[in-house]
Amino acid sequence: MTDFRLDWEREARTGVAEAVLCEPKTATQIAAILTEASNKAARLLLTRLAQQQHAALPAPLREQLDFDPLSRTAILGGLPRRAPEQGTLIVAAGTADLGPAQEAARTLAFHGRAAPLIADVGVAGLWRLNEQLHQLREARVIIVVAGMEGALFSVVAGLVAAPVIALPTSVGYGVATGGTVALHAALASCAAGVMVVNIDNGFGAATAAIKILDAGHRKLDPR
Amino acid sequence: MTDFRLDWEREARTGVAEAVLCEPKTATQIAAILTEASNKAARLLLTRLAQQQHAALPAPLREQLDFDPLSRTAILGGLPRRAPEQGTLIVAAGTADLGPAQEAARTLAFHGRAAPLIADVGVAGLWRLNEQLHQLREARVIIVVAGMEGALFSVVAGLVAAPVIALPTSVGYGVATGGTVALHAALASCAAGVMVVNIDNGFGAATAAIKILDAGHRKLDPR
Amino acid sequence: MTDFRLDWEREARTGVAEAVLCEPKTATQIAAILTEASNKAARLLLTRLAQQQHAALPAPLREQLDFDPLSRTAILGGLPRRAPEQGTLIVAAGTADLGPAQEAARTLAFHGRAAPLIADVGVAGLWRLNEQLHQLREARVIIVVAGMEGALFSVVAGLVAAPVIALPTSVGYGVATGGTVALHAALASCAAGVMVVNIDNGFGAATAAIKILDAGHRKLDPR
Amino acid sequence: MTDFRLDWEREARTGVAEAVLCEPKTATQIAAILTEASNKAARLLLTRLAQQQHAALPAPLREQLDFDPLSRTAILGGLPRRAPEQGTLIVAAGTADLGPAQEAARTLAFHGRAAPLIADVGVAGLWRLNEQLHQLREARVIIVVAGMEGALFSVVAGLVAAPVIALPTSVGYGVATGGTVALHAALASCAAGVMVVNIDNGFGAATAAIKILDAGHRKLDPR
Amino acid sequence: MTDFRLDWEREARTGVAEAVLCEPKTATQIAAILTEASNKAARLLLTRLAQQQHAALPAPLREQLDFDPLSRTAILGGLPRRAPEQGTLIVAAGTADLGPAQEAARTLAFHGRAAPLIADVGVAGLWRLNEQLHQLREARVIIVVAGMEGALFSVVAGLVAAPVIALPTSVGYGVATGGTVALHAALASCAAGVMVVNIDNGFGAATAAIKILDAGHRKLDPR
Amino acid sequence: MTDFRLDWEREARTGVAEAVLCEPKTATQIAAILTEASNKAARLLLTRLAQQQHAALPAPLREQLDFDPLSRTAILGGLPRRAPEQGTLIVAAGTADLGPAQEAARTLAFHGRAAPLIADVGVAGLWRLNEQLHQLREARVIIVVAGMEGALFSVVAGLVAAPVIALPTSVGYGVATGGTVALHAALASCAAGVMVVNIDNGFGAATAAIKILDAGHRKLDPR
Amino acid sequence: MTDFRLDWEREARTGVAEAVLCEPKTATQIAAILTEASNKAARLLLTRLAQQQHAALPAPLREQLDFDPLSRTAILGGLPRRAPEQGTLIVAAGTADLGPAQEAARTLAFHGRAAPLIADVGVAGLWRLNEQLHQLREARVIIVVAGMEGALFSVVAGLVAAPVIALPTSVGYGVATGGTVALHAALASCAAGVMVVNIDNGFGAATAAIKILDAGHRKLDPR
Amino acid sequence: MTDFRLDWEREARTGVAEAVLCEPKTATQIAAILTEASNKAARLLLTRLAQQQHAALPAPLREQLDFDPLSRTAILGGLPRRAPEQGTLIVAAGTADLGPAQEAARTLAFHGRAAPLIADVGVAGLWRLNEQLHQLREARVIIVVAGMEGALFSVVAGLVAAPVIALPTSVGYGVATGGTVALHAALASCAAGVMVVNIDNGFGAATAAIKILDAGHRKLDPR
Repeated sequence: MTDFRLDWEREARTGVAEAVLCEPKTATQIAAILTEASNKAARLLLTRLAQQQHAALPAPLREQLDFDPLSRTAILGGLPRRAPEQGTLIVAAGTADLGPAQEAARTLAFHGRAAPLIADVGVAGLWRLNEQLHQLREARVIIVVAGMEGALFSVVAGLVAAPVIALPTSVGYGVATGGTVALHAALASCAAGVMVVNIDNGFGAATAAIKILDAGHRKLDPR
Repeated sequence: MTDFRLDWEREARTGVAEAVLCEPKTATQIAAILTEASNKAARLLLTRLAQQQHAALPAPLREQLDFDPLSRTAILGGLPRRAPEQGTLIVAAGTADLGPAQEAARTLAFHGRAAPLIADVGVAGLWRLNEQLHQLREARVIIVVAGMEGALFSVVAGLVAAPVIALPTSVGYGVATGGTVALHAALASCAAGVMVVNIDNGFGAATAAIKILDAGHRKLDPR
Repeated sequence: MTDFRLDWEREARTGVAEAVLCEPKTATQIAAILTEASNKAARLLLTRLAQQQHAALPAPLREQLDFDPLSRTAILGGLPRRAPEQGTLIVAAGTADLGPAQEAARTLAFHGRAAPLIADVGVAGLWRLNEQLHQLREARVIIVVAGMEGALFSVVAGLVAAPVIALPTSVGYGVATGGTVALHAALASCAAGVMVVNIDNGFGAATAAIKILDAGHRKLDPR
Repeated sequence: MTDFRLDWEREARTGVAEAVLCEPKTATQIAAILTEASNKAARLLLTRLAQQQHAALPAPLREQLDFDPLSRTAILGGLPRRAPEQGTLIVAAGTADLGPAQEAARTLAFHGRAAPLIADVGVAGLWRLNEQLHQLREARVIIVVAGMEGALFSVVAGLVAAPVIALPTSVGYGVATGGTVALHAALASCAAGVMVVNIDNGFGAATAAIKILDAGHRKLDPR
Repeated sequence: MTDFRLDWEREARTGVAEAVLCEPKTATQIAAILTEASNKAARLLLTRLAQQQHAALPAPLREQLDFDPLSRTAILGGLPRRAPEQGTLIVAAGTADLGPAQEAARTLAFHGRAAPLIADVGVAGLWRLNEQLHQLREARVIIVVAGMEGALFSVVAGLVAAPVIALPTSVGYGVATGGTVALHAALASCAAGVMVVNIDNGFGAATAAIKILDAGHRKLDPR
Repeated sequence: MTDFRLDWEREARTGVAEAVLCEPKTATQIAAILTEASNKAARLLLTRLAQQQHAALPAPLREQLDFDPLSRTAILGGLPRRAPEQGTLIVAAGTADLGPAQEAARTLAFHGRAAPLIADVGVAGLWRLNEQLHQLREARVIIVVAGMEGALFSVVAGLVAAPVIALPTSVGYGVATGGTVALHAALASCAAGVMVVNIDNGFGAATAAIKILDAGHRKLDPR
Repeated sequence: MTDFRLDWEREARTGVAEAVLCEPKTATQIAAILTEASNKAARLLLTRLAQQQHAALPAPLREQLDFDPLSRTAILGGLPRRAPEQGTLIVAAGTADLGPAQEAARTLAFHGRAAPLIADVGVAGLWRLNEQLHQLREARVIIVVAGMEGALFSVVAGLVAAPVIALPTSVGYGVATGGTVALHAALASCAAGVMVVNIDNGFGAATAAIKILDAGHRKLDPR
Repeated sequence: MTDFRLDWEREARTGVAEAVLCEPKTATQIAAILTEASNKAARLLLTRLAQQQHAALPAPLREQLDFDPLSRTAILGGLPRRAPEQGTLIVAAGTADLGPAQEAARTLAFHGRAAPLIADVGVAGLWRLNEQLHQLREARVIIVVAGMEGALFSVVAGLVAAPVIALPTSVGYGVATGGTVALHAALASCAAGVMVVNIDNGFGAATAAIKILDAGHRKLDPR
């Protein structure tokens, strides 16, 4: 008996493919899913795959995976062959936020989108942000990644016209433990039009960006 | 001495105009802001304006306002003259969610966008949603409005390719008091690409939708 | 001195037997309880028994146990000999929810009830649920198992007449860490008649289902 | 334009009729719903209808309602004509819990079920509960209503074989403000098989009881 | 019997005088305190004095008070005669934050310190802050007043060398209700050396500023 | 330099000796404290001493300790020689609550008080409590130890005249994780005169009992 | 039908009489209880009786009551005739804490115990506490009443040998709103033997004190 | 590609140098930062550097560090050569609070300030504090370090005129787990002028103290 059923039509229906959230699964369950995908010669994205989980996979499956420990993502079947679509920018407040930022970047790459990363532009040194203002204003959609007090969400959103997807991270300690301060700061932002995803949910931020990019395409169709 | 300074260039810089959040302001402060806008012949959107606050405004100012008590919004200077841009859809779970839904619709109208409303499609009667499936799949961006347990966010996002902006409302009692259950359900949604704004923040949902629509326009420009 | 006293009459009094919640107990305490039960040739259900705790039991006791690591349950003395009673259905949102779902299934089996399992029918792909609609409508009581945002509770309860027992799981991260979002979504459900048990409490969901099935039996007795 | 759509088929589909949660609705919205129901000669149950909301309804509608201020319920179209089905018992810890207890009783009556009420049997005076033990053991399903520390849920569930629906109330102050202590005590109960509904949700407790009673009926059908 | 005892030596001992927190007191209690102070010809500061409480005071006492409804403060006995000491600056994010900002300003004035106010410099329009940079860098201590997401605390602290006292306000709704988001943002600030007082505690921010100014004076004494 | 100063006069001043809370201390810090006490030939009680911390102590110190791993307590210098004073009773809901119960018993013994223990009398089987009613009514002060939903606190306090000290434990999962449900149930108890200490604070419960016993002694002194 | 049943034997069984918590009851319910007590010529204590509730009682009942608005208590049937027993002391941090302090004092008086009150001894002016040290050390049991940060609990408990009952109050704002900071400070106190009751629960603090005083009496009986 | 950019001008701009918060960084990231600093011959402070992280650094880098495991700080490039400035005092409630206290002391030393430490002066033994009163009154700024119930913040602030920086620690269990009780006690303090930093944020307390000391210097400059 299989106890999972992948939704292979999801990309057609919603624009983004189903991914496998590995954290709460056993290695046996992950291996079974990978085997089915591999047999179908399907591409598959795995998220929140811990290094121990990765190490526990059978070697033949593990060797098919492109695994990135910082973002805890793995890709089966490689990236799309077409040239990646431009338009997305990722801005990360600090070095410690790079894990979720990279999860977003890898998810975008898996779906054929490029996303340059501007790192370490926290608000305690705003001049670092000002240097990048031109690049910020060029983007069609911006993913801002920040933990701690999350002030960067409001600052970026006040500077640009592009939609801003706030990706709060669990970086922080004391009252900021677990990322709720950054999350709440994004939701309560005094800057209009900030949209928020769950803490550390780089996958969700990326798929939201893809849907925004695609909304622009769809608009071109006559109705 | 004036103790406020409106950001009249915000629309040029970020694509959406500054609005006045009235809830925490005194009637005197609101009147001063309206006077300045009126003197400049500027258009202005007021949000979270309670009926008592509206009633406390000087009559000459009050009479210039188009006030809607259900959404607690008021518009100074009328709507834009151009034909509203299509592409946004608002879906509300229940009658009780119509206040924030209407705040979003009025904010969109203020910025020259039309947004039809599908009301009362809660998940306890999914057939009501299925009837609207065609209209859902036509939209370029969808604002889903729900309180209580917020299951509608995931259900809609699983059916369409358009970006979904979840607008949780404070409708609910017991554990759902204040809207945090709907908010958290949106953030934790198992459907990819759901983006969330603060509880009852119809203004934020609408400005996010505007930025998404505009992102599509910008894409047409050669770079 | 013994520091525990098992309630061997509980099944006669309340319809369900006492079980041993192992998580907060030392291996010595668990071994003492098993020894007493074994000496009485009594059947016994152990819940939340971690693999390390199981491994730390004396071999002669451990070998008498039917242990299932996924659900962390162990059964001493085997299942009842009579054919299991039908009528219960278990529906799980995702692969990651199978631990608590299996705890419920094993508890039902221990008490002589069968419960088929429908897995991986999360609301992001509602078609998977629709395929099972007939089976859902046949059941006399349904246990719905879901973590994350818990939208499945409302969706199933809106489709069937049977009582729905919501079993929220601790599957999730960010705001959903620990399972409170799924728990609150179940409690705030807009669908009437959803009943809820504690997070990951598969034992509680199963014993509730048994009491519901038995309530039907009792009704046949003349009063 | 109507902004609501009642689900008149819900009773056929799920065994309980749609009710109108009035708290978050305007008097205008409630009046519109009542008018539609009245025009259809349909029976309708209204819950969480505050005395002020009731008073604000147009007199012709208001006079058609059987309104009970303690439970904040109103019934349009009277009770069913058939003799009410027995089997449900309501046990309330204190006088202050009678509002939600009565909401449950009225909901049961609206659906043709009788439910005697045992009041004021808090655990600080357990002898009051022991006197009622015979009646408790006769019931097919028991709704236990308690606020404060909610100890009554566990005590009753330890004494009977019937399924226990815990209905926590918002009665309490200090740490018990809003009813979360009673809710959590019900969820964490050491007695097996306690099922829980939202705080003050007498409607939910009653519809759960109806589904449990109906589950017994269905069992008699051959399959 | 008097049920209060004012600490008339507190100013000598700690540098700031005792103030009367009126919110949780009855009008009778406040009147008794004022009478004692008036009889001693002592100066006294009252905080969190609601307009209704003020109106309920006996007219002879009320007329001795300099009452400011926006900050809910009243001063008995006037301001010090000496020229106010310079060095403190108050920066408020929005018009809605002016109540607590004014409580701080009035407390400073009561103790003989001047504090100019820069209002409406929220981070969604950073240019408004940049215009004031010179004044910010002149101050010896800065009180930053902000509600909502509280991003202004980090932005100001990243620009200046003066100690920054963060005064979070209860301005906000949804997740920001009550001011905890601004409070947590201040505590979790990635900018070094931000110090925080309780939500809406303008009195506490001002007395902290006074102690900082006095610490500079004390340093001049030889030891 | 020593970075601790024991309060050797505390017993004379307050009736209970200072104890060393080991959990947040390094092994080096604990060893230094033990050395000072040993050099003074003083008796000392250590609480929350983990097995690893105990194992990390220098052998000569470790061998002087009477260590009990279940309660994580250690006693230096043995028990008092006088016959222990009677009057305290400890009642524990389940086997899993025995750690904190034993911490209380050991603290009482260290101060020369005896305390018999009644174990495993949870409210799901009230008959187990009724058997002990005589012993309960004999006690001068009762410590009730319970986790989960903490119903035992109210049940015992409703049966006896002695003061009841509620000692909530961290036993539980889901909503009961960490013990806050039991704590809140104790605080919200509908039974009069229940007093509460911190979660798992067996030391605090015992020292409170000692002070209550001593209050009786003091009363005999003429004043 | 009566929907309440008073527990007239509670005083014999537990040492303190049943009291009527009025806050969540309707005036009709309170009047019915008073009528029964009056007909029995029984004494009765009412707590948390708001001035509006008191005013809504029928005049003949109201006139039999000794009502105190500050503590929101009312006494039917007067105080006991015997001379009150000494030994209890009440210490209140501030004027604003006098409501709960007075609820405790009135409850003690109702049960025939005297309790002098030391008011306004907050820790910001410790000298006020030191002046009362002799009286503090004379008491057999001390009720400490404090809101805000609740530092007084630890300070008093560190100075005396008597058992300390901490009565946290809801006095405070910002993070201290509702009294949880004072409650948690009492529970986490570093001083041994502090016992805690619910926020604003003056009745509970007083009945705990009575049980402690009685425990001393009982000890004198030979066993 | 480097994914970090140190803000070498921060000390000039804000008075305190940028430090590296190591906890959320990988060893590789920390090593890259140290290499850049070492190449620049720059001094650098590392905070929250766990022993395992320190051990994982390449030996040549590790040997350049002055690492202190208790405070989890490391200093690259030694202390300033000038004689340290006096004026700061650190007061710690207990031995367990010495980690954050030492983080503050080391941060002060890194910036050329001395700070004597008074340890183990918890309020349960106030005489220990009184002995130090002279030293307390000499200081220009005092950092008070406490966990548990945090009563020491109010007690010290009531005794001195110097500004008090409250540094709450995560020392505690039960309700005090994680340090929020101490944090809230500091914020809610009834003593005027207490300023608060995040839990365990010794770095933040120290940099705040530095800015306060510097504010005094600046005052001497003519303007």
